[in-house]
Amino acid sequence: MGAISGKEFIERIDRLNPNIWLDGKKIEGRISEHPAFKGIIKSKASLYDLQHDPLLHRKLTYLSPETGEPIGLSYLQPKTHEDLLNRRTMMEIWANHTHGMMGRSPDYMNSVIMAFASSAAILEGRENCFPENIRSLYNRAKENDLSFTHTFITPQVNRSQLNIDFSKEPIAARVIDHNEKGIIVKGARLLATQGGLTDEVLVYSAGGVYMDADAYAFSIPSNTKGLKFICRESFVGGDSAYNSPLSSQYEEMDTILVFDHVLVPWDCVFFYNNVEAANEFISLSSFHNYATHQAVTRQIAKTEFVLGVAGLLVETINVSSYQHIQEKLSEIIIGLETMKALLIKSEVEAEIDEWGYLRPNMAPLQTATNIFPRIYPRFSEIIQLVGASGMVTLPTEEDFKSAIKPDLDQYLQGASRTAEDRVKIFRLAWELTMSSFGTRQTQYERYFFGDPIRLSSLLYKSYPIDEYTKMVSDFLNIT
Amino acid sequence: MGAISGKEFIERIDRLNPNIWLDGKKIEGRISEHPAFKGIIKSKASLYDLQHDPLLHRKLTYLSPETGEPIGLSYLQPKTHEDLLNRRTMMEIWANHTHGMMGRSPDYMNSVIMAFASSAAILEGRENCFPENIRSLYNRAKENDLSFTHTFITPQVNRSQLNIDFSKEPIAARVIDHNEKGIIVKGARLLATQGGLTDEVLVYSAGGVYMDADAYAFSIPSNTKGLKFICRESFVGGDSAYNSPLSSQYEEMDTILVFDHVLVPWDCVFFYNNVEAANEFISLSSFHNYATHQAVTRQIAKTEFVLGVAGLLVETINVSSYQHIQEKLSEIIIGLETMKALLIKSEVEAEIDEWGYLRPNMAPLQTATNIFPRIYPRFSEIIQLVGASGMVTLPTEEDFKSAIKPDLDQYLQGASRTAEDRVKIFRLAWELTMSSFGTRQTQYERYFFGDPIRLSSLLYKSYPIDEYTKMVSDFLNIT
Amino acid sequence: MGAISGKEFIERIDRLNPNIWLDGKKIEGRISEHPAFKGIIKSKASLYDLQHDPLLHRKLTYLSPETGEPIGLSYLQPKTHEDLLNRRTMMEIWANHTHGMMGRSPDYMNSVIMAFASSAAILEGRENCFPENIRSLYNRAKENDLSFTHTFITPQVNRSQLNIDFSKEPIAARVIDHNEKGIIVKGARLLATQGGLTDEVLVYSAGGVYMDADAYAFSIPSNTKGLKFICRESFVGGDSAYNSPLSSQYEEMDTILVFDHVLVPWDCVFFYNNVEAANEFISLSSFHNYATHQAVTRQIAKTEFVLGVAGLLVETINVSSYQHIQEKLSEIIIGLETMKALLIKSEVEAEIDEWGYLRPNMAPLQTATNIFPRIYPRFSEIIQLVGASGMVTLPTEEDFKSAIKPDLDQYLQGASRTAEDRVKIFRLAWELTMSSFGTRQTQYERYFFGDPIRLSSLLYKSYPIDEYTKMVSDFLNIT
Amino acid sequence: MGAISGKEFIERIDRLNPNIWLDGKKIEGRISEHPAFKGIIKSKASLYDLQHDPLLHRKLTYLSPETGEPIGLSYLQPKTHEDLLNRRTMMEIWANHTHGMMGRSPDYMNSVIMAFASSAAILEGRENCFPENIRSLYNRAKENDLSFTHTFITPQVNRSQLNIDFSKEPIAARVIDHNEKGIIVKGARLLATQGGLTDEVLVYSAGGVYMDADAYAFSIPSNTKGLKFICRESFVGGDSAYNSPLSSQYEEMDTILVFDHVLVPWDCVFFYNNVEAANEFISLSSFHNYATHQAVTRQIAKTEFVLGVAGLLVETINVSSYQHIQEKLSEIIIGLETMKALLIKSEVEAEIDEWGYLRPNMAPLQTATNIFPRIYPRFSEIIQLVGASGMVTLPTEEDFKSAIKPDLDQYLQGASRTAEDRVKIFRLAWELTMSSFGTRQTQYERYFFGDPIRLSSLLYKSYPIDEYTKMVSDFLNIT
Repeated sequence: MGAISGKEFIERIDRLNPNIWLDGKKIEGRISEHPAFKGIIKSKASLYDLQHDPLLHRKLTYLSPETGEPIGLSYLQPKTHEDLLNRRTMMEIWANHTHGMMGRSPDYMNSVIMAFASSAAILEGRENCFPENIRSLYNRAKENDLSFTHTFITPQVNRSQLNIDFSKEPIAARVIDHNEKGIIVKGARLLATQGGLTDEVLVYSAGGVYMDADAYAFSIPSNTKGLKFICRESFVGGDSAYNSPLSSQYEEMDTILVFDHVLVPWDCVFFYNNVEAANEFISLSSFHNYATHQAVTRQIAKTEFVLGVAGLLVETINVSSYQHIQEKLSEIIIGLETMKALLIKSEVEAEIDEWGYLRPNMAPLQTATNIFPRIYPRFSEIIQLVGASGMVTLPTEEDFKSAIKPDLDQYLQGASRTAEDRVKIFRLAWELTMSSFGTRQTQYERYFFGDPIRLSSLLYKSYPIDEYTKMVSDFLNIT
Repeated sequence: MGAISGKEFIERIDRLNPNIWLDGKKIEGRISEHPAFKGIIKSKASLYDLQHDPLLHRKLTYLSPETGEPIGLSYLQPKTHEDLLNRRTMMEIWANHTHGMMGRSPDYMNSVIMAFASSAAILEGRENCFPENIRSLYNRAKENDLSFTHTFITPQVNRSQLNIDFSKEPIAARVIDHNEKGIIVKGARLLATQGGLTDEVLVYSAGGVYMDADAYAFSIPSNTKGLKFICRESFVGGDSAYNSPLSSQYEEMDTILVFDHVLVPWDCVFFYNNVEAANEFISLSSFHNYATHQAVTRQIAKTEFVLGVAGLLVETINVSSYQHIQEKLSEIIIGLETMKALLIKSEVEAEIDEWGYLRPNMAPLQTATNIFPRIYPRFSEIIQLVGASGMVTLPTEEDFKSAIKPDLDQYLQGASRTAEDRVKIFRLAWELTMSSFGTRQTQYERYFFGDPIRLSSLLYKSYPIDEYTKMVSDFLNIT
Repeated sequence: MGAISGKEFIERIDRLNPNIWLDGKKIEGRISEHPAFKGIIKSKASLYDLQHDPLLHRKLTYLSPETGEPIGLSYLQPKTHEDLLNRRTMMEIWANHTHGMMGRSPDYMNSVIMAFASSAAILEGRENCFPENIRSLYNRAKENDLSFTHTFITPQVNRSQLNIDFSKEPIAARVIDHNEKGIIVKGARLLATQGGLTDEVLVYSAGGVYMDADAYAFSIPSNTKGLKFICRESFVGGDSAYNSPLSSQYEEMDTILVFDHVLVPWDCVFFYNNVEAANEFISLSSFHNYATHQAVTRQIAKTEFVLGVAGLLVETINVSSYQHIQEKLSEIIIGLETMKALLIKSEVEAEIDEWGYLRPNMAPLQTATNIFPRIYPRFSEIIQLVGASGMVTLPTEEDFKSAIKPDLDQYLQGASRTAEDRVKIFRLAWELTMSSFGTRQTQYERYFFGDPIRLSSLLYKSYPIDEYTKMVSDFLNIT
Repeated sequence: MGAISGKEFIERIDRLNPNIWLDGKKIEGRISEHPAFKGIIKSKASLYDLQHDPLLHRKLTYLSPETGEPIGLSYLQPKTHEDLLNRRTMMEIWANHTHGMMGRSPDYMNSVIMAFASSAAILEGRENCFPENIRSLYNRAKENDLSFTHTFITPQVNRSQLNIDFSKEPIAARVIDHNEKGIIVKGARLLATQGGLTDEVLVYSAGGVYMDADAYAFSIPSNTKGLKFICRESFVGGDSAYNSPLSSQYEEMDTILVFDHVLVPWDCVFFYNNVEAANEFISLSSFHNYATHQAVTRQIAKTEFVLGVAGLLVETINVSSYQHIQEKLSEIIIGLETMKALLIKSEVEAEIDEWGYLRPNMAPLQTATNIFPRIYPRFSEIIQLVGASGMVTLPTEEDFKSAIKPDLDQYLQGASRTAEDRVKIFRLAWELTMSSFGTRQTQYERYFFGDPIRLSSLLYKSYPIDEYTKMVSDFLNIT
């Protein structure tokens, strides 16, 4: 089968019919037609369609060595610099197509599945570990172009430093039992973006795991019995692309996942009840390398979009001669060049791992994951500062269709734009940074890689500071 | 008549029936029942009702020397420190009642009208100036407890540094003619908060005015012929106080004002066609003193509310032992203490002006106006950082009434809170900082006193730096 | 005796002849003539002389109720607002006279001794506590106008979070024994500013004390046997007021204190071996109130000086029209107004303690102690940014006396200054911010009140956040 | 002759005997033995000696196509990526050898001369332009391994925005006349680092030039008649490597250059009296590319040194477990990775210019020049914050040789270091960030590439924002 089209994707998702709840109601009918989901599903479908675009398909797919069919390139296990660059090109095309706004564009999770499979050997011969299930999932996924979401954030009941969850009734999802058919999972996970809108859900423990019951990883179809997706409020602003240019297309939805005695069949289980294996797999596998490589690529596309929006605002109200405006836009440029440079460095300094796969270097990628959560909120602020009071009183598409159009045309015109275009540009800037959709994007980027404070500590701990300390000790002739 | 009740306010506003447009439609019917306005009108009414609260009326009113009737205390012209403190107490009570969320609580504009009247003598005997109209408006306003909005931001067509608007068809509202009945105004003003929801609109030029046609000030009823209010999108999240605790009560609406050949009767005109008078009146009157005194008082109430929200979040997820959390909350405390201290300093250093009124000192108030636009956005960010990923997946009131309630109860419980209360707290934090309502509040505080860069330059230019320069010159024995 | 003159001070210090080490040598001869100390001693003497200035003596002294003699006003135990304001005026005069550059101007420690005496009752009737010794020291000090330094920072051997010093040989100074004559102290304290340049040294435990041996407080003459002061490098730049306008006068010196089996006579001991009393005395006494009140007053004088230097630089090179320059100077102004406002708030909200003394309120003072360590380094940076490349190539007084004077006169002239004055101004700016003297000032202000991170946590913990949390809970109708 | 040794360098400089003034005295005798210069001259000599180190000479030199002799590799005109990487490796070796502390290590100016020669064709056939003189200088320089400084900052008399220097007597150095022998230059330049310590001085106009008299470029020997170097105060702390590990080796000295009717022979002139050529040559030549490529390489070495110092401090006082310490060191790491990434990006994206030379890409280099002036001062601050109060009371080498050594040994010991080593480490940290030497380094990096505000505007103006603006316009379907 290989690389699917948008239509195939939509039909498959509609068939799945997972158990999704929104605003107190269970979703009924075709999910692809629901107001809260149709925009994002259409956008995802358009990504799959690109795979069949005559101009792009060579850049977006590769030929399966097994079947000869074209496979989505994000499934490619890179062994050479060319592979790595091809992967990046593919991811850039998708990211630019969606302006970096789709956090769970399929290539993100495809890369994760690919990374898991490329590192499955870590689990070989260990108790309660089934590397063969990872490999077979990978094969199934690439041949069928499956889509995934994942989830690793546990509920936030008590975040105090010394708190360990010993509650009898699980809160965080946990393996509570197992039988001949599989393991039984009960509890919740806080956050799965696009939960219910993908073929499968990958569930695993990302951080330090302390208890066997928390040490597991598996992937199951979204419509598995007992699995429930609880949505937050929808941030779709409406169907009008004029009023809501972004949320009408890119509102991904976030969900809480509830596992009500979910039976995970043995052949879906990657490992369970093995704390050491759980922790080592996440830290030694190429998971972080490839996932971050994709994320940074996407964030660069988003930064380019932000720079474009800022530039358009500046042009519209003709403020480019102000030094403080130049400085603010330079901040975005500096962020963009920095992110691009770190991505290039990760590729230039990529290294072959023990299984022959070329891993982008982590130090520059980790640096990017420390930088972006700080600069993206600042970009958002810069847009607000450039737009200033103009961000506050924005009419709608309906206003421009009403009797007050002549007033708007006269009084809201821009230096070089009609009122209608000027408002369109400002509405985009507003939606990007000040709407519920926009602030969720900001919060999303802030926490995309986890707690920023932890990321900072991790960078400190993993960096070879000793080399430099030694250099200075030598300079001082002390030992 | 004197201090009115909430009921009287509502009836008066409903009778006015101004020309308001929202989302392409003209508002019909009682404005106090319209979904976009009913919340804020009810909140304003509750402020007027406090004036008749047996416990508070002495603190909120004073007796008219003319009629013996109780008058809203924000109309009091202060001559003593006690007057100034009484004014502040009154403003604190109203600000706390609305948690600092109502930018155009009536005392703000009452203070402006009072300041205008107290400084009307500046206009005495000058060409095209009518100080008597200011005084009579003041008397009418205090005797009838009128409410006002004002507007001084001109459309943002071209903000380039050297741009002066010479367009033939006025864009910024301008005096285009005058006749025996009054002056004729045509053009627009960018932003009037609560436009159409007040008895009158005060229109004047705030910054440096260069052309006669722009040099005017007047106050007219909201239903004056030819006056149109064009609303932005409403940010009321709905009627549910659970889902939208703030926007259901405090969404004030911002409007563009269109003047379509509006005839302003002579007895409503304060001055026109007099550039010098226009600039001097704004800079020499007590306008900035009293308006800023009220604004800073309100911003303090808002900061207290923000601190409470942050404290409640911290308690709910039990993160008070983290050093970075303590530091973040300390930032809010530092902001609060600083704003309070500056307010006190402005009162301690108040000075009697040449007409016998006690003006709060501007230097500390100007300092506050430089600080708050920077710290309020940071407070908003701190709330988001404390709430972290918990801000993203928030269910609604309807979810808690549905079949998934047991899941929510179990999985969203807080360290010391039920899930329902925990979500209520997080929804408040979210609405305060991440909803369209919340981001508009942030942008509002950022620009409340005008362009922050201009404010910074003004402070530099108005501050007696020479005293300190001289001190250092003396130290160096140079002249 | 009462308030002394500068001459009396110098003679007394010269007579003391304490054990001071500098750059590997023991100081011999009159300390008041030593190049490293003569400047600061002369500056201190000038403060004492002001007490006898006919124009100032009423503001700087009060009459002893016991002897009728004039006493330095910093010894006054304030009971009324007038007392508090008189104290502040006195401290302002001294701080302005030394431009806030003298951290250990005598009023600082006088205020500490006064606070100790005013709160001595806390120690009444407790084991190993001698409140009478505090009171008698206070009387002796005020009648003789004694000067003090103090020391509370322990050596920084190992600052890891869980480290407690169990070393057998004491490192931090500790009570190792006691006999009929007194207690025996051995070990070191890291930092006493002006160590060896004052009549006595007050030694006590400032932070949380865990062990009896560390729980003590006493005051001893600087020439006590076994007491050694080890100086850091001197930062006096030379005698030339042209080259070194600040360090030639205000370089205070910092010293390490070594206690080599120092016998502290019983009548000098305030308490020892009582952990609870030690911790309570520091936290419940008025120590922090009065010490911080003085420090903030001094820091305001310093900020005024910094503003003057910045203003003079701006004028000299004529850059006042740049918006970024205006913004930078506004930052200093904002800092100045904020510090002043917090000081006023602490006085307006002062409260009588249980012994009848009026304590300045701590919340605004604590806020100031959180703010100043952050803004003072920024002020230093602003001066450097305003001076820019002009800070780098500064000739000396000798250059202006040499054959190249004509070149300097021509090429280093300022917009409105001769080259000689211009260089004088820049040298001041350089010495204030970039010399060893200047960077020590910066580090000093950064750590004046202790570890900034701890200060931030303390503010959080001591602030009544619960009031605000409750207000928000009420708003949400949750309990 | 080709690549010289350290001895040859020293002898040549001593022979030159330029006209240098320091502290009112003309330097007499061998400059290489003068206390203010001997350290830096020795350090420079050690760089030349590396060229003859058997292990390094292949990396530091290439064979002259003309003479077959080894030439310093910084003179290589790169045509391939390998050339560019070889250049970088060479520059890294020198930068690491001097820990990035030598701003005018010879490769900096060699690269400038090489860039000028590689772009000389720009001047071909233009009035008053002599590209052949540039090429012949280049050949002479590389064959003789000449060293240079340069100067482009004009005196800071009046920096107001609209000021143009029309003074009759030149202040900024200007071409005041010309005759058959050459041009006559009179006036001053503000700043030449290592002025008088190099074979020649390159003098040219860097920024926008408006007047013919300011539009020139030439290179002359340091001992040219009429040329005077006026030094600032020396920041050499002394000979002791213990007390002054950096300034005893790396204090470069900055000088004011005075041109007293200096005759610049025609064959030293590159161009004069041609505003257009002057401005185009600087902006179109590869000057910025190669100079910045070297500078960024050096700044990376410096950052590595800073990271080592910070790491050593952390280790010495055992504070690595504090989250805020980890965050601070992460900031340095982020800076280091970012600078390295930008350098790599400039090489990966290098492009062949019209004369066949491979130019590192400017966008990432410009980004680096915007970043480093901001992060280096922050690094300095971080070191101060990590060292905290430990930075204040540092004894000297002499103290450790005196009778108080046992006290120091006991009381200043570190967690894992002797007192002597601990103090050595802290003295390094202090000298790097708080000594006059250290703060000059900070100011130097802040202004290395010119006014940071101008750099920010330049980046904005030179960046292809239109690409991104167009992308967003397309997204919105507006034109």
